[in-house]
Amino acid sequence: MRRTRFDDWPCPIARTIDLLGDWWTPLVLREAFAGRRRFDEIQQALDIPKAVLSARLARLVDEGLMTKEPYEDRPARYEYRLTPKGRAMWDVLAAMWRWGSDWAFDGEPPAILSDRETHQEVRPLIVDEETGAPLDVRRIRMRRNPRAELPA
Amino acid sequence: MRRTRFDDWPCPIARTIDLLGDWWTPLVLREAFAGRRRFDEIQQALDIPKAVLSARLARLVDEGLMTKEPYEDRPARYEYRLTPKGRAMWDVLAAMWRWGSDWAFDGEPPAILSDRETHQEVRPLIVDEETGAPLDVRRIRMRRNPRAELPA
Repeated sequence: MRRTRFDDWPCPIARTIDLLGDWWTPLVLREAFAGRRRFDEIQQALDIPKAVLSARLARLVDEGLMTKEPYEDRPARYEYRLTPKGRAMWDVLAAMWRWGSDWAFDGEPPAILSDRETHQEVRPLIVDEETGAPLDVRRIRMRRNPRAELPA
Repeated sequence: MRRTRFDDWPCPIARTIDLLGDWWTPLVLREAFAGRRRFDEIQQALDIPKAVLSARLARLVDEGLMTKEPYEDRPARYEYRLTPKGRAMWDVLAAMWRWGSDWAFDGEPPAILSDRETHQEVRPLIVDEETGAPLDVRRIRMRRNPRAELPA
């Protein structure tokens, strides 16, 4: 049974979950952010069925989050690289990382994020880009974008 | 067929997607953040099958993101309210909102977030809580949490 599709909803959250809600996709992206580019590397790191990984990578390429480029001719082998659209998804994964770290373990989570250069722990936080203030959900509302064209 | 479960993975992203990857769950949370508390309100706003909404709300209660409280006795009717664990998920939805707004539409997205008091547009951005700097995925690595107890 095909699940409900959210990709034509006028809501940015719905469009994002349409992609991330494909099982395994966020973890495939996590491996890409960790520097893994080759099918076999990702497949082994995740212990994911090959057919599922193929389908997930194909969709990520199709949606413009990754490119597929040959790195070997015989046999033909491909690398998967994040595009700017794919790299931008890091913020969503970072927010998931923070929520999971704070709420989904009893006690300390087993892994943390850290800065390669300073070695300091990094704790992702959502703020408003303009003011730098953390978002207070009680003060936020969704409204029509005045810059968007109305449907004819 | 039961999908793969990610809730026992030692990765905060995997644990979060185990919950958010249930179809509809991020949109049920979106409605809760928009102030909708009653089953019928949420059901109508999303045009979601009732059995699916029941299952999603039951899981959100079970996982501690919402509470279910009676607001009427005869017939028995319930309100669903976000707990602190549920409210914390706002940051993940905000990050999805931003990515979807930036990348999932041709041109301007149809809706924006704004501050109820200042009426200014709010653009969610992920930063490091300590430094306030935007996260640069190329500088971030995942490593073992030195504060976590090792498995015996």
